[in-house]
Amino acid sequence: MQKISVAIIGWGNVGRGCKRAIKECSDMMLAGVVRRPVSLGKIEPELEDTNVVADISKLDHVDVALLCIPSREVPERIKLYHGLGIATVDSFDEHERLVALKREADISAKAHKTVSVMGAGWDPGTDSVVRALMRIVSISGHTTTTFGGDKGGRSMGHTALVKTIPGVKNAVALTFANGRGHHKRKVYVELLPQADLEAITQAIKADPYFRADPTEVLAVKDINKFNTLNHSVSLERTGMQVNQNYVLAGVNPEFTANVMVSAARACITAKEQNAYGAYTLLERPLIDFLPGATLDEKLAGY
Amino acid sequence: MQKISVAIIGWGNVGRGCKRAIKECSDMMLAGVVRRPVSLGKIEPELEDTNVVADISKLDHVDVALLCIPSREVPERIKLYHGLGIATVDSFDEHERLVALKREADISAKAHKTVSVMGAGWDPGTDSVVRALMRIVSISGHTTTTFGGDKGGRSMGHTALVKTIPGVKNAVALTFANGRGHHKRKVYVELLPQADLEAITQAIKADPYFRADPTEVLAVKDINKFNTLNHSVSLERTGMQVNQNYVLAGVNPEFTANVMVSAARACITAKEQNAYGAYTLLERPLIDFLPGATLDEKLAGY
Repeated sequence: MQKISVAIIGWGNVGRGCKRAIKECSDMMLAGVVRRPVSLGKIEPELEDTNVVADISKLDHVDVALLCIPSREVPERIKLYHGLGIATVDSFDEHERLVALKREADISAKAHKTVSVMGAGWDPGTDSVVRALMRIVSISGHTTTTFGGDKGGRSMGHTALVKTIPGVKNAVALTFANGRGHHKRKVYVELLPQADLEAITQAIKADPYFRADPTEVLAVKDINKFNTLNHSVSLERTGMQVNQNYVLAGVNPEFTANVMVSAARACITAKEQNAYGAYTLLERPLIDFLPGATLDEKLAGY
Repeated sequence: MQKISVAIIGWGNVGRGCKRAIKECSDMMLAGVVRRPVSLGKIEPELEDTNVVADISKLDHVDVALLCIPSREVPERIKLYHGLGIATVDSFDEHERLVALKREADISAKAHKTVSVMGAGWDPGTDSVVRALMRIVSISGHTTTTFGGDKGGRSMGHTALVKTIPGVKNAVALTFANGRGHHKRKVYVELLPQADLEAITQAIKADPYFRADPTEVLAVKDINKFNTLNHSVSLERTGMQVNQNYVLAGVNPEFTANVMVSAARACITAKEQNAYGAYTLLERPLIDFLPGATLDEKLAGY
């Protein structure tokens, strides 16, 4: 069987996690990593055995591109890779924009006879699947999603956004539970010289990622003291005589990377069935995300 | 939009739950309930407004039959209803037989241009979906499924099996956690006069439902003192830097009924797409199980 050839786009925490996850999948191979030209010269032991390029066309044949880049850069990359006939997987994380973006991507995927799996991360992503499951198990009821608990956890999309604000050298954005599905945010920023903390604080608080929640911004000298990769989520649904709870806790970028790599497999299955288009996790059969050469292997443990 | 016409086959706890669940679904209507001829005369307030028949052909048009009967009666009923062009949903619960049974049903569904969704209960069922999700979120690792915890919970398949043993008037089979994904069983039986407790105990312990687990059988005067409809499950997966946990606790037949009713909707979507065949929950997109007239409605809260 031909292995699925996968390229990693972006070399942050998720990109690194994808490289590790691809190694766990005997049906996949890593074609290479696409980075910004400015980063190409960096020597990293983790990339010694890997093709690192600035342009995906410099790699051998690529079946699927894993977009391990900030969400706001995703739409443009999907168009670019669709034009090259390459399937894409992303973990686009702005819930309210996802469906509209999916419609656009669906048109371009069909036009180029390729496939995208979108919102294939933790939330949106596998949490969305659990929320769907809860609606199936308990038709009436109300679902609450709570991130971070009392200890807080690192929100990747929020952290990535803060890092793009001028004057910010490094940042980590933590999310804490604030009761009944509400949240509060704590943002630690390491500033460049002459940066204006007040202006940066205003920019953070005004951004859609933050504006709904109480947010505190703190300037620190060394971000590493406040950093973490951990996060957790609790999903609850109340319903007639029903009490359900799903708790997932662990390393956020690692989870997201695992979901994205599994989605690469689902892209190829869809393509083989000529089911071109852009899909959320709910729109493809979950069996397509699982390893296994036969139905029995895929359904083992059902 | 034409409502999906659903028949409930069997009037036990799951059948009753399905009737309540169908009421929650604005896209469905109850065509009637199919019972054994011997039960037809019983007067039950819950069935006053419902067509109750012994043969499904006595009902008006039925799109989907929900098989709320013991697992071992499921294969025969699937064949019968496929022959009439009726889609079926079951919560067949013998894990090791499910895939083989699905292959058989797949052939008959395709031959009659209809659809079955099989193993659409709690476990196999939504637990199977969570196990698949855990394999997606954490590619390496080992999943443990533990039922009942310390308090124990009512296993429906096990209870139904014990009730079929000659000499048993009524029964309840409880499952308790016994460490590391193992279980122990406690079976309370109310005996008919002259029943042989020793022979019944041997029959229970020898059955595939029980033979893998330590099982205690206790004769009681009044089963109601020991009865419960509650159950719980905890799914855990260990993996590299990963700690995941899914706990679902509540009323077992109610959950199963909700899943089966949601699966009726997925049958109709498959039929509309000419995707005839028999499927587990993993083989159809989860979005097909959700209510909603539009993609946006179905994806709300993704």
